[in-house]
Amino acid sequence: MTASFVQAPGETVDVAGTPFAYRELGPAGGVPLVLLNHITAVLDEWDPAVVDGLAAERRVIVVDLRGVGGSGGTTPDSIEAMAADTAAFLEARGLDLVDLLGFSLGGMVAQAVVQQRPDLVRRIVLAGTSPAGDEGPAGWGSTLQNAFGKSAAEGKHPKHYLFFSPTSRSQAAADAFLARLDERTEDRDAPVTDETIGAQLIAATKWEQGTSPAGLTDVDKPVLVVNGDNDLLVPTISSFNLAQLLPNATLSIYPDAGHGAIFQYHQLFVQQTLEFLRD
Amino acid sequence: MTASFVQAPGETVDVAGTPFAYRELGPAGGVPLVLLNHITAVLDEWDPAVVDGLAAERRVIVVDLRGVGGSGGTTPDSIEAMAADTAAFLEARGLDLVDLLGFSLGGMVAQAVVQQRPDLVRRIVLAGTSPAGDEGPAGWGSTLQNAFGKSAAEGKHPKHYLFFSPTSRSQAAADAFLARLDERTEDRDAPVTDETIGAQLIAATKWEQGTSPAGLTDVDKPVLVVNGDNDLLVPTISSFNLAQLLPNATLSIYPDAGHGAIFQYHQLFVQQTLEFLRD
Repeated sequence: MTASFVQAPGETVDVAGTPFAYRELGPAGGVPLVLLNHITAVLDEWDPAVVDGLAAERRVIVVDLRGVGGSGGTTPDSIEAMAADTAAFLEARGLDLVDLLGFSLGGMVAQAVVQQRPDLVRRIVLAGTSPAGDEGPAGWGSTLQNAFGKSAAEGKHPKHYLFFSPTSRSQAAADAFLARLDERTEDRDAPVTDETIGAQLIAATKWEQGTSPAGLTDVDKPVLVVNGDNDLLVPTISSFNLAQLLPNATLSIYPDAGHGAIFQYHQLFVQQTLEFLRD
Repeated sequence: MTASFVQAPGETVDVAGTPFAYRELGPAGGVPLVLLNHITAVLDEWDPAVVDGLAAERRVIVVDLRGVGGSGGTTPDSIEAMAADTAAFLEARGLDLVDLLGFSLGGMVAQAVVQQRPDLVRRIVLAGTSPAGDEGPAGWGSTLQNAFGKSAAEGKHPKHYLFFSPTSRSQAAADAFLARLDERTEDRDAPVTDETIGAQLIAATKWEQGTSPAGLTDVDKPVLVVNGDNDLLVPTISSFNLAQLLPNATLSIYPDAGHGAIFQYHQLFVQQTLEFLRD
């Protein structure tokens, strides 16, 4: 059992000829929890406080999908293809039943995985995400551009604007979160490419323009939907709509928080998630 | 310390010449938690599982407002007047700082109390309720009538329809809830009168037709907003809207549940509420 996410070694597994980068930690046994991350993110964008908190009780696996970070291949431009890649990764790792935690784009992928391959999934946590056909990721490109502009002008990381609310409390949580992301100094993941970001933006746009999948209303597995009360990237109402579509969803909205609510409230989120995943 | 809600003796306190009925249990000390109940409810409509769960850690006080159950006087026809009565009751009991748990109509009263008398309130739990001016209690009269009709036809208690979802899981929870309400056999509260129900319906209608109180957005006290994902009496979206209006609100929506979600998920609700109220 690896001591912490910051120390977990980078590993790769061959998925039909393409190496997928991943890291793994936590106790052996039980149903593993697989984490799927947001647009532009590589493995180092996972909050060590969240990963370590979850890994205190669960075997946790974080993965770069095709074309992301240290993984080979070219990122596909649809959520469905990313979901197929996720299933292929699980099979390559010999995992036949997992829990999924999908954040933002990763939450869309998780929704597609459970519809394509319900046999692989036990329970799902969906954070800061939206159902297909919802008002979700509208204008990510311009929201990102605005944040990058502000970021340059004010000398702050864009996630101060994109993931947190403007209050001093939330901004202090942003500082702490960003410091945690820098804790790992060795063996960091490769950065994301513009080509990958482009494909992810197209995939998210297709998801937004798609029709709400009829399949989602048949997903009777337990789902925990989480977000901040003021998400600029995937409007908070989309989390409400997602929980309404799913027949067995619990919704948790945290106060004074944005898209990165699960990082701002990492202790509360870890506690609720472990409780939700517990047998 | 009284052993349980079912055994808690009925008491009264004089509030400017009018006796208010209440019951009290749980440990002395700490900030007491005062429970405000739904339209038509008297003290015996509180779920012993919820009251006892909360009283394991908190001093809990349940009260009939003016004209309700064993209390004297005539029920006023506005939420604001009910809130003033609540404040007067607290003062008559010598309580200068409390937490409030308001369910449905009681949640409206709790919102008005914190706006009228912020000095009296520390934290608030609002279950199955709506902000003023929202789509909340539209058509309670006809919803109640329909449930009474179904109830008579199918030989079931109206709360099977009004408080729970139609699934077998939720209906089983309804059976268990209704059995708990019958546990107390001695010293039960007086029933509610038609006159009181009429005044409460008028008060709820005024609340619905009112404008969303500007004051609510200034309530920076911590609030926990809870509901089921399929509330027929106060649409679930109103709980979302309420949490959005309040600057420091956490929202919890439970799956496959209606207006009575806090009774269906009494263990989870008690756990979340105690955690939320803990210093």
